[in-house]
Amino acid sequence: MTARRTGRRPGDSEETRRAILVAARNTFAEKGFDRATIRAIAADAGVDPALVMHYFGDKQGLFVASHELPADPATLFAQMAALPVEERGVALARAYLEVFAAEDSTALSLVRSASTEPAAAAMLREFIEGAVVPLGVEMLVDPERDGPLRMTLLASHLLGVAVGRRFIEVTPLAGASLDELASGIGPAIQYYIDGWGR
Amino acid sequence: MTARRTGRRPGDSEETRRAILVAARNTFAEKGFDRATIRAIAADAGVDPALVMHYFGDKQGLFVASHELPADPATLFAQMAALPVEERGVALARAYLEVFAAEDSTALSLVRSASTEPAAAAMLREFIEGAVVPLGVEMLVDPERDGPLRMTLLASHLLGVAVGRRFIEVTPLAGASLDELASGIGPAIQYYIDGWGR
Repeated sequence: MTARRTGRRPGDSEETRRAILVAARNTFAEKGFDRATIRAIAADAGVDPALVMHYFGDKQGLFVASHELPADPATLFAQMAALPVEERGVALARAYLEVFAAEDSTALSLVRSASTEPAAAAMLREFIEGAVVPLGVEMLVDPERDGPLRMTLLASHLLGVAVGRRFIEVTPLAGASLDELASGIGPAIQYYIDGWGR
Repeated sequence: MTARRTGRRPGDSEETRRAILVAARNTFAEKGFDRATIRAIAADAGVDPALVMHYFGDKQGLFVASHELPADPATLFAQMAALPVEERGVALARAYLEVFAAEDSTALSLVRSASTEPAAAAMLREFIEGAVVPLGVEMLVDPERDGPLRMTLLASHLLGVAVGRRFIEVTPLAGASLDELASGIGPAIQYYIDGWGR
């Protein structure tokens, strides 16, 4: 983003908070969790580092806050839940592929950090266990028949596709269109949504 | 392994080669790709570093050779192909979960390296594109209907489960038994084996 270094008033707090989150996402994506600093993020957002600490406590808090945004599960699942149940698998696959498709995908930088940094893995784990799974079970998948396990397997499948496509860049996965992938993966996701063996 | 520092004769070459591969797997798993050295691997195997270079060329060659072992796709797919087709999904899921379940899983250390090291990602990509996909399409999945794409999606699903289970350690995925997981994942894998939309 373009840093805006002057003219923030107290009433700008929501805008300032958002600017910090954008700067954090960019910086984490570029440098990874360990090498990103509050100082660099604050500079990118055009604010004082103390203000970043005021809003988000520490780097980990900022990391979690900045990475929840692109795949806010409540919003996403509400969109899916509004669809006929048999369309949800393809639609959810499509939506998640988009989250991981962007060149500067923040979700992807989180997964990258989680594979090597225990602190990042813990944050991602807390996010999945605290938000993705309970919201998914409540809003999206059949809650009976091991709902939480199916929700984590559903998420794992989509995660694996992102890893194969974006980290390993394996052919033909990496070159396939999002539509082609979503229609291929959709029935597997639908299987987890519907409840296995149903 | 216990290093054996003396008494190797020329006729021991296959045994020596194997000792180097075991040492390499242990060292890569412990230190990751970048921090593992030929010197340390040679010391662990009880051989001269020059002998390691003689057999495997360089660290990358050694990395590939040592990581192909635990999930040799030709052997695994032959076992699966001997089963009735409708049992292959669960059996393949079970077999891959075992590859990634070991505390010192070499496949897991490869995936970890691939998420941050472009060289490791390239090696894993070459392995999947050069061995897993062609062998899988030939031996395991219906070759029609986008066989290579289905084979990479199948592999991605299993990979994602390993990442969710072993890196992110998300509940309830991490605590589920291999049998429970295999029976849950099996039908999704079977879908990719059979050819989608069939």
